[in-house]
Amino acid sequence: MASVARITTISARSEQSFEDAIRQGIARAGQTLRGIEGAWVKDHVVNIKDGQITSWQVNLEVTFVLDDSGAPVDASSD
Amino acid sequence: MASVARITTISARSEQSFEDAIRQGIARAGQTLRGIEGAWVKDHVVNIKDGQITSWQVNLEVTFVLDDSGAPVDASSD
Amino acid sequence: MASVARITTISARSEQSFEDAIRQGIARAGQTLRGIEGAWVKDHVVNIKDGQITSWQVNLEVTFVLDDSGAPVDASSD
Amino acid sequence: MASVARITTISARSEQSFEDAIRQGIARAGQTLRGIEGAWVKDHVVNIKDGQITSWQVNLEVTFVLDDSGAPVDASSD
Amino acid sequence: MASVARITTISARSEQSFEDAIRQGIARAGQTLRGIEGAWVKDHVVNIKDGQITSWQVNLEVTFVLDDSGAPVDASSD
Amino acid sequence: MASVARITTISARSEQSFEDAIRQGIARAGQTLRGIEGAWVKDHVVNIKDGQITSWQVNLEVTFVLDDSGAPVDASSD
Amino acid sequence: MASVARITTISARSEQSFEDAIRQGIARAGQTLRGIEGAWVKDHVVNIKDGQITSWQVNLEVTFVLDDSGAPVDASSD
Amino acid sequence: MASVARITTISARSEQSFEDAIRQGIARAGQTLRGIEGAWVKDHVVNIKDGQITSWQVNLEVTFVLDDSGAPVDASSD
Amino acid sequence: MASVARITTISARSEQSFEDAIRQGIARAGQTLRGIEGAWVKDHVVNIKDGQITSWQVNLEVTFVLDDSGAPVDASSD
Amino acid sequence: MASVARITTISARSEQSFEDAIRQGIARAGQTLRGIEGAWVKDHVVNIKDGQITSWQVNLEVTFVLDDSGAPVDASSD
Amino acid sequence: MASVARITTISARSEQSFEDAIRQGIARAGQTLRGIEGAWVKDHVVNIKDGQITSWQVNLEVTFVLDDSGAPVDASSD
Amino acid sequence: MASVARITTISARSEQSFEDAIRQGIARAGQTLRGIEGAWVKDHVVNIKDGQITSWQVNLEVTFVLDDSGAPVDASSD
Repeated sequence: MASVARITTISARSEQSFEDAIRQGIARAGQTLRGIEGAWVKDHVVNIKDGQITSWQVNLEVTFVLDDSGAPVDASSD
Repeated sequence: MASVARITTISARSEQSFEDAIRQGIARAGQTLRGIEGAWVKDHVVNIKDGQITSWQVNLEVTFVLDDSGAPVDASSD
Repeated sequence: MASVARITTISARSEQSFEDAIRQGIARAGQTLRGIEGAWVKDHVVNIKDGQITSWQVNLEVTFVLDDSGAPVDASSD
Repeated sequence: MASVARITTISARSEQSFEDAIRQGIARAGQTLRGIEGAWVKDHVVNIKDGQITSWQVNLEVTFVLDDSGAPVDASSD
Repeated sequence: MASVARITTISARSEQSFEDAIRQGIARAGQTLRGIEGAWVKDHVVNIKDGQITSWQVNLEVTFVLDDSGAPVDASSD
Repeated sequence: MASVARITTISARSEQSFEDAIRQGIARAGQTLRGIEGAWVKDHVVNIKDGQITSWQVNLEVTFVLDDSGAPVDASSD
Repeated sequence: MASVARITTISARSEQSFEDAIRQGIARAGQTLRGIEGAWVKDHVVNIKDGQITSWQVNLEVTFVLDDSGAPVDASSD
Repeated sequence: MASVARITTISARSEQSFEDAIRQGIARAGQTLRGIEGAWVKDHVVNIKDGQITSWQVNLEVTFVLDDSGAPVDASSD
Repeated sequence: MASVARITTISARSEQSFEDAIRQGIARAGQTLRGIEGAWVKDHVVNIKDGQITSWQVNLEVTFVLDDSGAPVDASSD
Repeated sequence: MASVARITTISARSEQSFEDAIRQGIARAGQTLRGIEGAWVKDHVVNIKDGQITSWQVNLEVTFVLDDSGAPVDASSD
Repeated sequence: MASVARITTISARSEQSFEDAIRQGIARAGQTLRGIEGAWVKDHVVNIKDGQITSWQVNLEVTFVLDDSGAPVDASSD
Repeated sequence: MASVARITTISARSEQSFEDAIRQGIARAGQTLRGIEGAWVKDHVVNIKDGQITSWQVNLEVTFVLDDSGAPVDASSD
């Protein structure tokens, strides 16, 4: 049987660390997406003001499995 | 007149072949997206267990035209 | 506090110019997405017929901030 | 029935703008190539002298359809 | 003794499969180019209409050896 | 508990098809490597002689899990 | 005789257009760098607020020739 | 009004962690550059001796805004 | 005198963090490879189940010096 | 006035060295192409038999200016 | 009949030149690998001390054919 | 203790060879930069006139260590 997943890109920032930014991004995505399987960290960026790092930012490619119920490939109700 | 399309990334697996995986992925996407025009095969991957290929997997960048009804760019009702 | 954005890819064509295509693409995306912050022009393409340029096309990676209401990461109601 | 196109790379400069450079490049290519369908703008470059931009230059990957008459794939008479 | 080859890019479509598209592209190129040694499949694309795959398309970088007769590097008579 | 895998690159040719080349490459690798989990098809190439495709070639990045016995990371006895 | 140039990366924004951004960036660079020969436009980005494009931004790799006076390769007095 | 920034590449090592290396690199850059806005982490590398990680190294592309005083684009006094 | 090193790719996972995954991967490689000098972190990936990060995974390109004893370039006894 | 150039890819081998291969490739191209302005060395490859380097091979992207006589963009008579 | 090769990456330095580094790297690899067919020069690097070039370094992707004896894909006895 | 280096890009041409161009570029950079550790050859280019190679050109990414005296990261007095 075939299996289909979708890959979406998000960007998340934390004042703590890159790993916290990843956790925050995954948590936010998990509010509306079911079946998240993993994420590839595409970019690591730091934002800076007055010589201080103000946030740690990651761009993530998040993969989530689509179920077989005919739910939208690109959908809010996933 | 301007025309706008959206590009979304999906991943599809088949037990048969890469071409079957592509067909399955397009069929699944077509359940909820109208106006699919094409797909670029970004990656070809095989999954293996005990020395046997268990599935043929493709990552696809699928392009679909947005109609002019004001339907969401990133929407479940497409 | 963490902040999460999403990045979506669109393709827009104009009969006028690349910059008009960008404006059209952003306008169309803005019909359904709130919080658009910017776009990276990934590709510039011209379409041609009988030796004439019939449209100027851009592929855009559009970034928009997700609010904290628990709205879908990948959703029509954003 | 199969259909075959060829992709060739040209570089065009204009004293006016990038879009004029694209038009000039397509016009020059159209003197000897039939069936041009489109072009991807691979690079945008400006040439500068004494602090002034002297030309706007683009590198284009031009696609043109080969007809079925057995005309050369890589040929002057296209 | 030195040996020189040329690399040209073609795009071929088939209604059957990617492998048929490759065969068609090589056959068409072989009508006018002698000495083809190989081809790298740069891209795999499917074109879709009304939810059906209408053609399987490949972009190929074809390498062919130039003979020593002084034939043009970029020539119709190759 | 941590888990470590190794990724090795092989190139395989078949007279039949790309998919046969993949099967042959995986079979040959499986003679000496245990724990193969998958392979990414990095390149698809065709070799040609006298206008005919003589072989279908793939470059594969093969991933295999290292067991915990202290077997070599880069070893014949895996 | 040998000749040496340096390549530096700048980012410039304009409220008008990409081409104005390029002109502004080159003008600013020309205040302190002599011998600018050209620039490659590495990225095109638009910044957006409330659905409107607020600035057109380019990243430029600027090349400038170093004279033979022993002036610094990476220097304020260039 | 136009705004121009410069992007410079630095490499920083720490005996502690990647994040400490980033902080060290930004701190060192901030001794002589005003207006640093952010940095993209281009590469993560570990240096190893006798099986131990001796330093955590990052390559950073640092962006800093140029003020309007006519200070050098590529200058020590920025 | 010439010096030759080899570069091998491994993938390591940890339940703790990316940095722990790097340490685990280097430790496992060091069981069988002598002369490891460093590693480039090619990819950062998180694996997720039921909305939780289950492992932090890195792909590493590990460089190790080959001694002059004629030991195999690609060998278990290195 | 606009100026248009074409970029073609060749591969050249020499038994002597990479630089000899470049000279041979340029000389061969110059038999049929006028107005060659430069070449970018895209790849350096060595071919080996019985442990000996049998040839030094380069892939070159050769740029040549098209004159205004209406000569073919992709033509044998250039 | 199928044919399988392996691709391994080495890094070689010489005090003389890049071409000497390539010869040294191939010679060292040939002590333990049979059937080397070629190498792609992935990177050219110079190492410098006190303003002098101390070594010329290349990274090579070496391809060698695996024989049919069932010798290890990734093996010391090759 | 942390250590910070800077990476700058230069382009150097020689009438003799690529290796002479590298030596010339490093020598010119060494007039004003202390602590150069190495350079990566990003591009090899030949410039041609009337069918003859007029110069061999390299683009180099030069790495130099910043001392701890608080000297500018991007400075003429380095």
